[in-house]
Amino acid sequence: MTTAMASEIAEQPEAIARTLDALLPMRSEIRRLAGERRQVLFVARGTSDNAAVYGRYLVEIHAGRGAALAAPSLATHYQVHRDLSDTLVVSVSQSGETTEIVETQAWARAAGAATVAITNVEDSPLVDGADLALCTRAGPERAVPATKSHTTQLTAIAVVADALAPGTGGAGTTPLEDQLRRVPAEIQRLLAEVANDDAPVDALASSPWTLVSGRGLTYGAALELALKLEETCLRPVRGLSYADLRHGPIAVVDPGITAVVVAAPDGPMLSGLTGLAGQLRDLGATTLGVGGDAGFRRACDAAVEGPDLPEEVAPIALLPPGQVVVEALARRLGLDPDAPRGLSKVATTDPGSADGAGHNDAE
Amino acid sequence: MTTAMASEIAEQPEAIARTLDALLPMRSEIRRLAGERRQVLFVARGTSDNAAVYGRYLVEIHAGRGAALAAPSLATHYQVHRDLSDTLVVSVSQSGETTEIVETQAWARAAGAATVAITNVEDSPLVDGADLALCTRAGPERAVPATKSHTTQLTAIAVVADALAPGTGGAGTTPLEDQLRRVPAEIQRLLAEVANDDAPVDALASSPWTLVSGRGLTYGAALELALKLEETCLRPVRGLSYADLRHGPIAVVDPGITAVVVAAPDGPMLSGLTGLAGQLRDLGATTLGVGGDAGFRRACDAAVEGPDLPEEVAPIALLPPGQVVVEALARRLGLDPDAPRGLSKVATTDPGSADGAGHNDAE
Repeated sequence: MTTAMASEIAEQPEAIARTLDALLPMRSEIRRLAGERRQVLFVARGTSDNAAVYGRYLVEIHAGRGAALAAPSLATHYQVHRDLSDTLVVSVSQSGETTEIVETQAWARAAGAATVAITNVEDSPLVDGADLALCTRAGPERAVPATKSHTTQLTAIAVVADALAPGTGGAGTTPLEDQLRRVPAEIQRLLAEVANDDAPVDALASSPWTLVSGRGLTYGAALELALKLEETCLRPVRGLSYADLRHGPIAVVDPGITAVVVAAPDGPMLSGLTGLAGQLRDLGATTLGVGGDAGFRRACDAAVEGPDLPEEVAPIALLPPGQVVVEALARRLGLDPDAPRGLSKVATTDPGSADGAGHNDAE
Repeated sequence: MTTAMASEIAEQPEAIARTLDALLPMRSEIRRLAGERRQVLFVARGTSDNAAVYGRYLVEIHAGRGAALAAPSLATHYQVHRDLSDTLVVSVSQSGETTEIVETQAWARAAGAATVAITNVEDSPLVDGADLALCTRAGPERAVPATKSHTTQLTAIAVVADALAPGTGGAGTTPLEDQLRRVPAEIQRLLAEVANDDAPVDALASSPWTLVSGRGLTYGAALELALKLEETCLRPVRGLSYADLRHGPIAVVDPGITAVVVAAPDGPMLSGLTGLAGQLRDLGATTLGVGGDAGFRRACDAAVEGPDLPEEVAPIALLPPGQVVVEALARRLGLDPDAPRGLSKVATTDPGSADGAGHNDAE
């Protein structure tokens, strides 16, 4: 029997293509709203926060504006006063209902920010409270672990970064648009490749201790794969940048651990991530590579092929084959990937807040 | 035999008092340098990055300016172009020699930022490259796990936040100064309390799976305790905010885990953190509380008493008793707290960079 998670993973090429069709034409509106604001502040939690990590790097690298992740508690608990007149706030929530995200967006707007909401639900409080809504076209998501709702968030974020890039004209195509249009076919190809390969699942099944590392533009994808493994397979998983890993926690790496390294096929991080994979293997860890180029994958004990796309958009296509491995691992462990223990589509972060009951949030 | 780590933990009251004497008078200089800049950007890695997390919250809450953590790779690997004319950059590095931090500071200065360096070594490249240097007075640190160098960093960061607070006059004392002056005596008291209590070490020894949680102003302290446990006791430890924990990873909490919750004795996070401790205990985790008030500690299986100081400065005094527990746990596990496997005082984050050999960096 096919799980809902497996079906939703397979729907991603179409969901992303639909999202691109809907959102790419909105770039001039995004650009107009942002104006000369120099800062982009992402507001998100959980899976959506991992999407925001990608957005943070992409906005700085591709659009040349400052970008950061908000700490929602500064708005919801500490009620700090800020001047956000120089800031575009991008709030990301699958359901558009998570109370702390809705509240933080309202706080930012009152502080002078222009606000963009990225959500999968058009009729939601997050859309109601935003200057501009970018609705992803993932369709309803039934499995608790977010898959297609996440990669369509990444797609929407890439559209925002493209809109903010200097020299992006209202009507013309841009380098990022061309690459984004290639993402659905690449995902289709990678899903076919990974379907017949047991080695990545074997590598992860060989130890209950897992860490996942990436850096720069693939850092968010590493965090997301870590979260997905943790939520779906119910094991504690560390996701961390290779710089942070090499700065201390590498001390705990030994033959009892499985290390996953996530890389794009090009860019300034590839050689460092290839070196990291080799180092982790030398320390005795079972090393699973996701993406990279042929040299990167040779440095690993097992590998999942990644997209032939530049680093700027590669993370969107890196995740689906990784999700396939996570889903297969859950089944091998005798777990139900669609409904991990202790989790629901309800996202509640604070027992004192009003959100929760009846919500349907996959973040 | 007393370890270097134990000696250095005990030196913290004096090291912090010396640091306050040296840095509090520099507040008017800091204020002048910052001017009307609306953003504070922290540049740090490892232990220093955990100090920056505290700084990020404190600057927003106490000083009302925007604050964020830099991603050094945007400077060192992606060479992004940014306009930082509205930004005060605060670089934090124990040794003042970590190449990526020195390079990121230089990048920020070239982009128009005003720069403050916080370091324990006056004769260092980080000091040479900064507009203003705040040198902590920790003295030499021999143990690999940073203790006094970290809490003096927190102290320096609190001085920066106090300097940037609206209404802080050049000569007058301020609310934060009064509280900071109370920190050394509180640490002295807490170190005496924790010395005779085996229960916290028992709680941590009971399971190899540990997670550490805090939120808001104690989030950085939670991350730092997690890193210290991981580096010193060589076990994978998760540090995460309670909002992120409740948003998904709480699925992996079961009776096989030890959960550490870090709280201040007051502030808007105390009730949520108390609720979290109770929830983790209900899930069967062995729950160790650090700090909080009496009600918080009653919600936990075991507890380490924390300071009677407001949330803004409590994290500085919360850490030393936690460090004592970590040091004792390492010895109980038959490890040498002063020289954990695979780590040295050398901080190298990138195999391709020139740093490393001969450096003496505890971050």
